[in-house]
Amino acid sequence: MLELYHAEPVANSMKPLIALFEKGLEFKSIYVNLLTFEQHEPWFVKINPNGQVPVLVHNGAVITESTVINEYLEDVFPEVPLRPADPVARAHMRIWSKFVDEYFCPALSMIGWHTMVRKIAQSIEKDELAKLLERIPLEEQRKKWAIVAGESFTEEQLADSRRKIGVSIQRLEALLAKSPWIAGPEYSFADVNSYSMVAGVPRLFPDLMNADNAGRSLEWLERMTARPAVQKALNMPNLVPETLRTFG
Amino acid sequence: MLELYHAEPVANSMKPLIALFEKGLEFKSIYVNLLTFEQHEPWFVKINPNGQVPVLVHNGAVITESTVINEYLEDVFPEVPLRPADPVARAHMRIWSKFVDEYFCPALSMIGWHTMVRKIAQSIEKDELAKLLERIPLEEQRKKWAIVAGESFTEEQLADSRRKIGVSIQRLEALLAKSPWIAGPEYSFADVNSYSMVAGVPRLFPDLMNADNAGRSLEWLERMTARPAVQKALNMPNLVPETLRTFG
Repeated sequence: MLELYHAEPVANSMKPLIALFEKGLEFKSIYVNLLTFEQHEPWFVKINPNGQVPVLVHNGAVITESTVINEYLEDVFPEVPLRPADPVARAHMRIWSKFVDEYFCPALSMIGWHTMVRKIAQSIEKDELAKLLERIPLEEQRKKWAIVAGESFTEEQLADSRRKIGVSIQRLEALLAKSPWIAGPEYSFADVNSYSMVAGVPRLFPDLMNADNAGRSLEWLERMTARPAVQKALNMPNLVPETLRTFG
Repeated sequence: MLELYHAEPVANSMKPLIALFEKGLEFKSIYVNLLTFEQHEPWFVKINPNGQVPVLVHNGAVITESTVINEYLEDVFPEVPLRPADPVARAHMRIWSKFVDEYFCPALSMIGWHTMVRKIAQSIEKDELAKLLERIPLEEQRKKWAIVAGESFTEEQLADSRRKIGVSIQRLEALLAKSPWIAGPEYSFADVNSYSMVAGVPRLFPDLMNADNAGRSLEWLERMTARPAVQKALNMPNLVPETLRTFG
């Protein structure tokens, strides 16, 4: 029995959603509403003490961290492979996924916090917000809320994140010059784990990703979006009002 | 044919060194002298464009990122396993290794830059340093050099890193309360990948790791240090003068 606790089909929640649909695995979807801070409620923190989605529960075992969840799905359900068979391509898949987690995603995340989460923070009454923030298990997350509820990030920090998004797209473009998929000739977690991260960039930062400087990445994005599994994932519930959406 | 480009047997260089010795694999050791900025020299940047050690070269294929190198070694040489057979324990191994890479190690690294790298930066004549820094491929690395060559990190940043080191040791302690090794009943990459990170803490921050608050972690450290493979790794060349050593 597989259960996935997840939010909207964007960012890290999207990674195991695509993997589950690609592998044709039946799972129970449990939607966690980030807009009402459900991920910090006691019932959810019991499942993941970090108070973060996505979380996979498989026969009672709790697996956190979207990149690790996908490796786990492959270890247990290898029938539809999403890890390349060639160990060198597999290493490239992991290097790219690590780069997305440590470099590309934090840069995108800062922009998302600055635009979307900031609006949410400012829409909540001050005392009410203070109470909600008190419940956040991770100090790093509490700090980010405090930042966007206040002065937000500095122009220098935001510019550095935009720079990193540009570096990430150029790195993607260079990889796609060598092979049709990110980690080599085979579609893999390298693609799955970065689809949602790349998808919002052409609209948000057209100067960083367009037909002139990132043609292969745009073409890859189209091929990704056309996949039935990605379509199924995109059709999962999205309760975020259009006015608040940054990436998805 | 396995070749490992590495620096002193500390930090990330230590991870594949331990793995190679545990697996009993023969390899050619190529020492890269970080004190003379050898990792930014053209010959090395040709191998790893990021200008970072360690790097594994196997039959001509270049594998970077110490955590990925270890997964690669397991994929190609599974005879002496360092990934748990149980997929849930394997996921725990990966969650811990990811936490070390993204949280524990950057916190330790800031302290190391503030103490050791700062001394190196200040020992080099200003114009000479500027020339050396110009060659650094990653902007993030160039910025860190500029920081420690100047005012260094703020007291607030350093305090936050010390806090994170404390959080990391308490997380280790909690895991070791459940099983003899970090990811479960079996010795694994979770242990290999964090040995060198934990090893310097009791001496540098005795308040954060001592017999009263981290007895299990100290005992685990002793068990780790006693392993023949760890001893072999520790006996690899260390050219850093005693006065500059922070962790190793």
